[in-house]
Amino acid sequence: MTLAYDGRAYKGWQLQVNETTVQGTMQRALAKLAEPPIELIASGRTDAGVHALGQVASLKIASSLEAFQLQRALNSHLPTDIRVLDLVPASAHFHAIRDATGKCYRYVIQDGIVADVFQRHYCWFVPGRLDEVAMQQAADSLRGTHDFASYQGSGSPRKSTVRTISEFTVRRRAGEGGSFLVLEVAANGFLYNMVRNLVGTLVEVGRGRRSVEWPRSLLQVADRKQAGRTAPPQGLYLLRVEYAGGT
Amino acid sequence: MTLAYDGRAYKGWQLQVNETTVQGTMQRALAKLAEPPIELIASGRTDAGVHALGQVASLKIASSLEAFQLQRALNSHLPTDIRVLDLVPASAHFHAIRDATGKCYRYVIQDGIVADVFQRHYCWFVPGRLDEVAMQQAADSLRGTHDFASYQGSGSPRKSTVRTISEFTVRRRAGEGGSFLVLEVAANGFLYNMVRNLVGTLVEVGRGRRSVEWPRSLLQVADRKQAGRTAPPQGLYLLRVEYAGGT
Repeated sequence: MTLAYDGRAYKGWQLQVNETTVQGTMQRALAKLAEPPIELIASGRTDAGVHALGQVASLKIASSLEAFQLQRALNSHLPTDIRVLDLVPASAHFHAIRDATGKCYRYVIQDGIVADVFQRHYCWFVPGRLDEVAMQQAADSLRGTHDFASYQGSGSPRKSTVRTISEFTVRRRAGEGGSFLVLEVAANGFLYNMVRNLVGTLVEVGRGRRSVEWPRSLLQVADRKQAGRTAPPQGLYLLRVEYAGGT
Repeated sequence: MTLAYDGRAYKGWQLQVNETTVQGTMQRALAKLAEPPIELIASGRTDAGVHALGQVASLKIASSLEAFQLQRALNSHLPTDIRVLDLVPASAHFHAIRDATGKCYRYVIQDGIVADVFQRHYCWFVPGRLDEVAMQQAADSLRGTHDFASYQGSGSPRKSTVRTISEFTVRRRAGEGGSFLVLEVAANGFLYNMVRNLVGTLVEVGRGRRSVEWPRSLLQVADRKQAGRTAPPQGLYLLRVEYAGGT
């Protein structure tokens, strides 16, 4: 199934004792629809406050409902900040984590003088004017296969810190409430906090505090402490998850 | 000054004892910047939960700050769901209510199968598919000068219920989270709940439950009970206020 959620009220995807999480909320809704065991596995965790436009989860459930009926029933039991956008039968072997071949994240920044009241929980407001051309150049220099250790947040180290970024775009979008930068980055996998660290680093370039070459030069040093700050969670969206044969 | 606010947390514009209102919140912020008396008058009240993209208010304040400094200081004291978009010196005679020659409201509806999680507080979700062509035809038939008594909410009667609608558009806008109808209506003045009653009535037409001619025929009966339901507040935005010489 494909899910959208407003991450604001949640301590991320992953089930936690005494915390409101997306997975926990989903499982409570599912428990109203079928007997256990119910297996629910998302393509990956999202952190506290991070949103999803296209999270994918695999679900094993014993139900006599058709897929569209299950989707409707689930949406009627879920709070309105989580929606099942799509739910289709999958092969019994499908596994939302193991089968994922890539992911794409979006990060939304508003720059300018006055923050839009309606987007305040859905983007990062950066006062001033960011240079999106310089940011796009820096983003281009990060495409390809590299060791992204400098962009890995602490706390969740991976065996290999090599990843391949296939797409990294920075687009300016004028809206009624101001002007926004929409960054989208696709890769075969991401390290912990990698997107938010990339964004925090590109913003230093956009502010003119650092050169266009700086983000790429950080790859060599393999030291998280030298990169930019971690961008805040409310601008981040899991946009889509890619599978070899589609979802 | 021109203001934007997210109406969700407020019991409308107007100061009320023991209620959080936009005016009360503004006055608390202003009190930190200057000694009383401070006079703050908006072009009109907005109801509980209604938003503003371009509310206009006149302010009399004794301050040595320049207008842009006052704007910045005020924004730093206001919660992030209220923003001063613009603040310019006005004639001593300017009065935000008395001088207003017209207003324009926007109403946003989402139709379709699944409500967008990010717009759920900022539009009215109507399940199914609305016929925007029929709604536009009905909207066209309401333009001009009419007695809008059938569209006046109870509780705040006006001496005359005659108003002139100069503009009434229904546009479909595709968004990532679904498809939206954006209604905009401009008039020389509005009765209590008039926009929300017009929208509730047009939605009956869009659903195919009523004819395109029905909304206009209601003008003759001058009976609120015969029109459609009052659309909910979270889809309504005060878009702009018009003044003879500009603001």
